[in-house]
Amino acid sequence: MQIAILGTGSVGSALGIRWALLGHTVVFGSRDPSAEKVLELLERGGPRCSAKSVKEAIDGADVILMAQPWAAAKATLASLGDLGGRPLIDCINPLKPDLSGLDLQGAESAAEQLAAWAPTANVVKTFNTASVKVMNQPQFGDQKATMFYCGDDAEAKTKVAQLIGELGFEPVDAGPLTSARYLEPLAMLYIHLAFKQGWGSNCAFRIMKR
Amino acid sequence: MQIAILGTGSVGSALGIRWALLGHTVVFGSRDPSAEKVLELLERGGPRCSAKSVKEAIDGADVILMAQPWAAAKATLASLGDLGGRPLIDCINPLKPDLSGLDLQGAESAAEQLAAWAPTANVVKTFNTASVKVMNQPQFGDQKATMFYCGDDAEAKTKVAQLIGELGFEPVDAGPLTSARYLEPLAMLYIHLAFKQGWGSNCAFRIMKR
Repeated sequence: MQIAILGTGSVGSALGIRWALLGHTVVFGSRDPSAEKVLELLERGGPRCSAKSVKEAIDGADVILMAQPWAAAKATLASLGDLGGRPLIDCINPLKPDLSGLDLQGAESAAEQLAAWAPTANVVKTFNTASVKVMNQPQFGDQKATMFYCGDDAEAKTKVAQLIGELGFEPVDAGPLTSARYLEPLAMLYIHLAFKQGWGSNCAFRIMKR
Repeated sequence: MQIAILGTGSVGSALGIRWALLGHTVVFGSRDPSAEKVLELLERGGPRCSAKSVKEAIDGADVILMAQPWAAAKATLASLGDLGGRPLIDCINPLKPDLSGLDLQGAESAAEQLAAWAPTANVVKTFNTASVKVMNQPQFGDQKATMFYCGDDAEAKTKVAQLIGELGFEPVDAGPLTSARYLEPLAMLYIHLAFKQGWGSNCAFRIMKR
């Protein structure tokens, strides 16, 4: 697949590099595609990575990952134009600056708000409930970390589930996009456990069945 | 310990019977302690179980489990009088009747609302993110299901963590009572997976570390 990654922060970088090394074509969208930080990122990602402006990065992309901060998302989405029903992965956690809770500003979830800002995309919420360390290595002994995803479009979800599974996670369908109302608080639980309860960022959720 | 279980629904019954069989003294609080359903429950729980009125059930209890429906909790707590700082376990999920979401009626979480209604108790939120099947058997192969708990009083949390662990769960401290804002949506995710996404009630969350 050709994957556009909007943002070059830690989550976008980690996922983009891994997908590129797995054989996908990855185009990072950046305000400054020739910045030193971006060039270093491209070097780590290898020949299937490139960087362009945000607007150019989505040209020809099969899947778009929105990996910018919550505060930047609205303006970016408004600048993109018609997304033609393509999957838009939302990995954003709408955190208060002090990490003390979610800052939804009246929305039911960030994912639903994104869907309202980008009505021509098919939003899938995922990659918001594990650290970058876990995204780089989702295997815990003989167990895979679970990565929940939710969205309203079956085709978009199938593509995203494939990308989740290729990284080594167990993709778990959490239902329609309204389930982001549960996945965003789950991220808060993760952040709380990792950074306030002493679990550190080498921990992950799993759902078990018997 | 002596444990008062307020309510004889499926969760209260399951936990009370298991704790009684593990050696604790369990007093069920019921509107009708001599109802056939309650007598059957006592038979299953054995000699360390008894049933009294809700008001009498808390006499001498070291720990109180609030296992009534959300709609009944306020009136029950108002009837109990001073709880003297005892641990009050809140396992309630404040569900909309059609299970489509949480019905907090303006509160940040049911647990915080309970704490406001019972200011003389030390509320600990737990036992809200797994099915009764899992409460009866928290072992999945060689893995224990995780049971998150949160609260503001260290002593109350220690007692409750012990009771969680004795059942066979891995107790995980999720921090202060405000973390109920994450544990209640986690229950919604569980319910959604179990009953709408086809996982069934023989599934459980676990947090893994490496």
